[in-house]
Amino acid sequence: MTVKKELAGIVGGMGPLATIELMKLIMEETPATCDQEHIPLLVYSNPKVPDRTKAILGDGPSPVKALIESSQLLENAGATFLAFPCNTAHYFLPQVEAAVSVPIINMIEETAAEVEQAGISKIGILATDGTVKTGIYQKALKARGIEAEIPDEKSQLAVMEAIYAVKAGCDLKEATQILEPALIYMSRRVDAVIAGCTELPMLLRGFAYGLTVIDTLQVLARRIVARALRS
Amino acid sequence: MTVKKELAGIVGGMGPLATIELMKLIMEETPATCDQEHIPLLVYSNPKVPDRTKAILGDGPSPVKALIESSQLLENAGATFLAFPCNTAHYFLPQVEAAVSVPIINMIEETAAEVEQAGISKIGILATDGTVKTGIYQKALKARGIEAEIPDEKSQLAVMEAIYAVKAGCDLKEATQILEPALIYMSRRVDAVIAGCTELPMLLRGFAYGLTVIDTLQVLARRIVARALRS
Repeated sequence: MTVKKELAGIVGGMGPLATIELMKLIMEETPATCDQEHIPLLVYSNPKVPDRTKAILGDGPSPVKALIESSQLLENAGATFLAFPCNTAHYFLPQVEAAVSVPIINMIEETAAEVEQAGISKIGILATDGTVKTGIYQKALKARGIEAEIPDEKSQLAVMEAIYAVKAGCDLKEATQILEPALIYMSRRVDAVIAGCTELPMLLRGFAYGLTVIDTLQVLARRIVARALRS
Repeated sequence: MTVKKELAGIVGGMGPLATIELMKLIMEETPATCDQEHIPLLVYSNPKVPDRTKAILGDGPSPVKALIESSQLLENAGATFLAFPCNTAHYFLPQVEAAVSVPIINMIEETAAEVEQAGISKIGILATDGTVKTGIYQKALKARGIEAEIPDEKSQLAVMEAIYAVKAGCDLKEATQILEPALIYMSRRVDAVIAGCTELPMLLRGFAYGLTVIDTLQVLARRIVARALRS
């Protein structure tokens, strides 16, 4: 019997920088000493996918068609499993899953599992308005008995502004400053936060007001490497 | 008449870090203020492609089969043109071109054209043993009346060691130090060098002994963006 080799398909471009960051994290998580020991990746970086948050808030077109097209393109090209380096896009995952026959790694569920494993009982969520409103993180955490802390209106505004500054290619230092009020808010209420948008971890690598940061992109990278290497 | 939208196919993974760097440079070269304004990319990062330099020196298997497979996969998935972020792989380009029907941007030719445009009449070549031995850069430059300066044996050894240190995931500062003797050698003979291996530009962003650096990866990024945006 021949076992089919695993090939990760990355449904990327949401935003393009988060996709690049995921690829870098995958390299870092792979034990390799030469090119040939790294894992193959098939990446469709399609930044034309309509804005996920706008769609959730009823302010823009649905990204589902584009997400399905990207996923099917990768499946047809040989991807044996898929990953979405975009937290907000996970809200639409059930519709995508129904349109492809390969499994999709669920970054939200995997992150909640990692929070549980770390023994954290209450955690802050830093994410887009879309992700927060859908409650996907709150539900995944609640199912594991973990309490979720959501930013107040002012802090949430800072989070959104920081995320879209990164997407616009703004200086990362500047975006980090924009995020500050949300970190101060969280540091008074919780010990740990989920960087629940793929544009956020890069803003939280330095000083994060003592908060432990669960990097959803890193969780995804680890799961991708584990699955690719078991083949 | 509908014009088919251009989709760049990146034949990547040689090494994986160079592919990531190219994607980052493409982002930087794109005038964009939100996700949706960036260009779509289809990337096959396949680090399993046999070592190009070893093949050229007769020390290992040919990468041609893997390069053709990667290229055909991208063409079949919808790529309308291809790019190879690996200088050494360009030696095998004629064989790949014969096996696909989409055009391939030739990074060697485009770099030589950029050197000519910059009015440089003599330039040093920093590249793998494989690239240097095939003479692809020397030929492309000579056709434009530009003289090429090749490192001596000791300096070439330093270049190879630095390149493979990057591929092994070594600290970039350490790799930069390994490269130093080659830069000193070149700075005594020329005013400019071609960073003719995709692992090198990241080692030449700081102090490069006053040498003007022509970054082949950046030349490639510019050509990809120009082609994608004209569609």
